[in-house]
Amino acid sequence: MYELYHWFDLLGVAVFAISGTLLAHEKNMDGFGVIVLAAVTAIGGGTLRDMLLDVPVFWVYDTSYFITILVTVFITIMWLNYKPNFPHYCLQLADALGIAFFAIMGAQKALELGVPAMTAVIMAVLTGCFGGVIRDVLAREVPMLLKGPLYAIACVVGAGLYILLVHLGTNPELAMWLGGIATLLVRLIAIRWNLGLYVFRYPS
Amino acid sequence: MYELYHWFDLLGVAVFAISGTLLAHEKNMDGFGVIVLAAVTAIGGGTLRDMLLDVPVFWVYDTSYFITILVTVFITIMWLNYKPNFPHYCLQLADALGIAFFAIMGAQKALELGVPAMTAVIMAVLTGCFGGVIRDVLAREVPMLLKGPLYAIACVVGAGLYILLVHLGTNPELAMWLGGIATLLVRLIAIRWNLGLYVFRYPS
Amino acid sequence: MYELYHWFDLLGVAVFAISGTLLAHEKNMDGFGVIVLAAVTAIGGGTLRDMLLDVPVFWVYDTSYFITILVTVFITIMWLNYKPNFPHYCLQLADALGIAFFAIMGAQKALELGVPAMTAVIMAVLTGCFGGVIRDVLAREVPMLLKGPLYAIACVVGAGLYILLVHLGTNPELAMWLGGIATLLVRLIAIRWNLGLYVFRYPS
Repeated sequence: MYELYHWFDLLGVAVFAISGTLLAHEKNMDGFGVIVLAAVTAIGGGTLRDMLLDVPVFWVYDTSYFITILVTVFITIMWLNYKPNFPHYCLQLADALGIAFFAIMGAQKALELGVPAMTAVIMAVLTGCFGGVIRDVLAREVPMLLKGPLYAIACVVGAGLYILLVHLGTNPELAMWLGGIATLLVRLIAIRWNLGLYVFRYPS
Repeated sequence: MYELYHWFDLLGVAVFAISGTLLAHEKNMDGFGVIVLAAVTAIGGGTLRDMLLDVPVFWVYDTSYFITILVTVFITIMWLNYKPNFPHYCLQLADALGIAFFAIMGAQKALELGVPAMTAVIMAVLTGCFGGVIRDVLAREVPMLLKGPLYAIACVVGAGLYILLVHLGTNPELAMWLGGIATLLVRLIAIRWNLGLYVFRYPS
Repeated sequence: MYELYHWFDLLGVAVFAISGTLLAHEKNMDGFGVIVLAAVTAIGGGTLRDMLLDVPVFWVYDTSYFITILVTVFITIMWLNYKPNFPHYCLQLADALGIAFFAIMGAQKALELGVPAMTAVIMAVLTGCFGGVIRDVLAREVPMLLKGPLYAIACVVGAGLYILLVHLGTNPELAMWLGGIATLLVRLIAIRWNLGLYVFRYPS
C-alpha cells in the first residue's frame, strides 16, 4: 500500500513540474531556470510543511522525487518545442488532481504527528498550494493563490472532510479517497464557473 | 503572568492581521487571499524565528493564533465594507505597538536558548519585521523594510536596550517593558518626522 | 585547517555582501535596507541549506558572519559615496569566487550528513545561488538564477566533480580545491562568452 501512495505522490510531483515548466517557457527562461521553477512548484509546498512540522524534509533522503522532476521537465521541453500550444484544459485537470492529492497527503502527515485539526488543515493548504505561490513569486506574477478562483478553499474543504471522517472513525483510506475527491470537485467546479470568494464591496 | 503575555501576543497578531487585510483590500484580492496575506503578516516573522532557532513553531500546537487571525480578518472585512476609509494614523500606531511587542518577544525567546546577544537582536528584527516583508513580496510591493523610515532600527534599539538591561541584571519584566517602550518611541518618532537612515549620496 | 576554511567562508560572505550592497545602491534603499539585502545575499543560501538538512543554522551561534557583513557594508557604502562607479568586472570575478567556495562547502556539509549524492548537489546549488535569488526577489528583479548565463550549472559541475572525486577516494581537500576551481572556470567561461543553456525554440 505504501508503494501505491508513493506512486501517486510522484504523479503529483510530475503534474506540478509540468506547470512550472510551462510558466518558464512563457517567461523565456534558460534550462536551469526551467528546472528551478519546476522543482519549487513540485516540492516547495511539501518542503515548507516538513520544515514547519520539524520532520525530515521528504526529498532529502529519497532521490526519486528529483529524478521525477528532471524526467518530467525533459519530456515537457521536448513536447513544447515540437508543439508549443499545450492544451490548457488538460493542464488544469492535472493541476487539480495534483492539488487534491497533495492536500490530503499534507493533512495526513500532520495528523500523524498529533497536531490540532486546524493545523492539519493549514498544512493541507500549504502542501497543496505553496509550491505554486513560490513559482509565481519567482516569475514575478501575482500569486494565483491570492487572486485565483477558490484555489485554496478546495484544499480546506477536502482536508476538512478527511479530518472529520478520521475523527468519526472512518477507515483512513476511505477517508483519504473521499477527501481527495471533494478537493478535486470543488476545484473543478470553481474553474468551470470561474467562482471566487469575493468579500470586498467596491464602490462602482 | 504567562497568560498576560499570551494576550499581548494575540493583540500583536491581530494588529498585523489588520494590516495584511488592508493591503489585500487595496489589491482587490478574494477571500482566501485576504486570509493568506493577513496570516503571513501576523505569524510570518515568528515562524521564521522558530525555524532558525530550531524550536517548535509556535502556532503548530496552539490554535489560538489562527483563530485570532480569522476573527480579525472577518471583523476588518465587515468594517471595510461599511466604511472603506480606514483612519491611517490609527493603523500606524497599532502597527508600531505590534512591532514593539513582537521584537521584544523575539529577543526574549532567543536569549532563553542561550544564543549570542547579536543573534538575539537579529531575531528581534526578524520577528518584528519579517511578516511585513513577506506580505509585501506576495502583494508585489517593494518591502517597506527596505525603503521605509527606520522600520527595523526601532527593533534594534528596543531589543538592544532589553538585552543590555537583562545582562546588567535588571528585573526581566521591567527590561521587557523598557525595551518595548523604546521600540515604540523610535518607531513613532520616525513616522512623525519621516526619518530615514540615508547612507548613499547621489550626484544631483 | 578548520581556521583556514572559516576565513575562506567569511571571504565568500563578504563578496556576496558587496553584491547586495551594490543592488541596494542602485535601488536607492536606506541604511537598514542595505544591511538586510547584503545579509540575505550573504547568508541566505547557507541558512536554507541548514534548515533543509535540519542542522543548526551556521550563524546562530557564531557572530563572526554577521560582523563580517556589517563591516563589509560599511566599507562598501564609504567606497560608493567616494567613487560611485564600481568596476563591474571585479565584482563578477569576486561573485564567481564566492559561488565556487559556497557550492563546495554546501556539498561537503551535506555529504557529511550522509545524504545521497544528488541531494548534495542540490545543496551545493542552494548554498551557492539561493542568497542571490532572495536578493533579487526582495529588490523586485527577475532572479538572475532564472535568466542568467549558467549561474547554477557551474555549481552542479563543480559539486558533481567534488562528490565524484570523494567517492573515488581522492584526498578530500584536493577534491574540494578541484571542485571549486571547476565551478569558478565554468562560471567565468559562461560570463566571458555570455553562454546560456537555451532549451526552448521560439518561432521567430
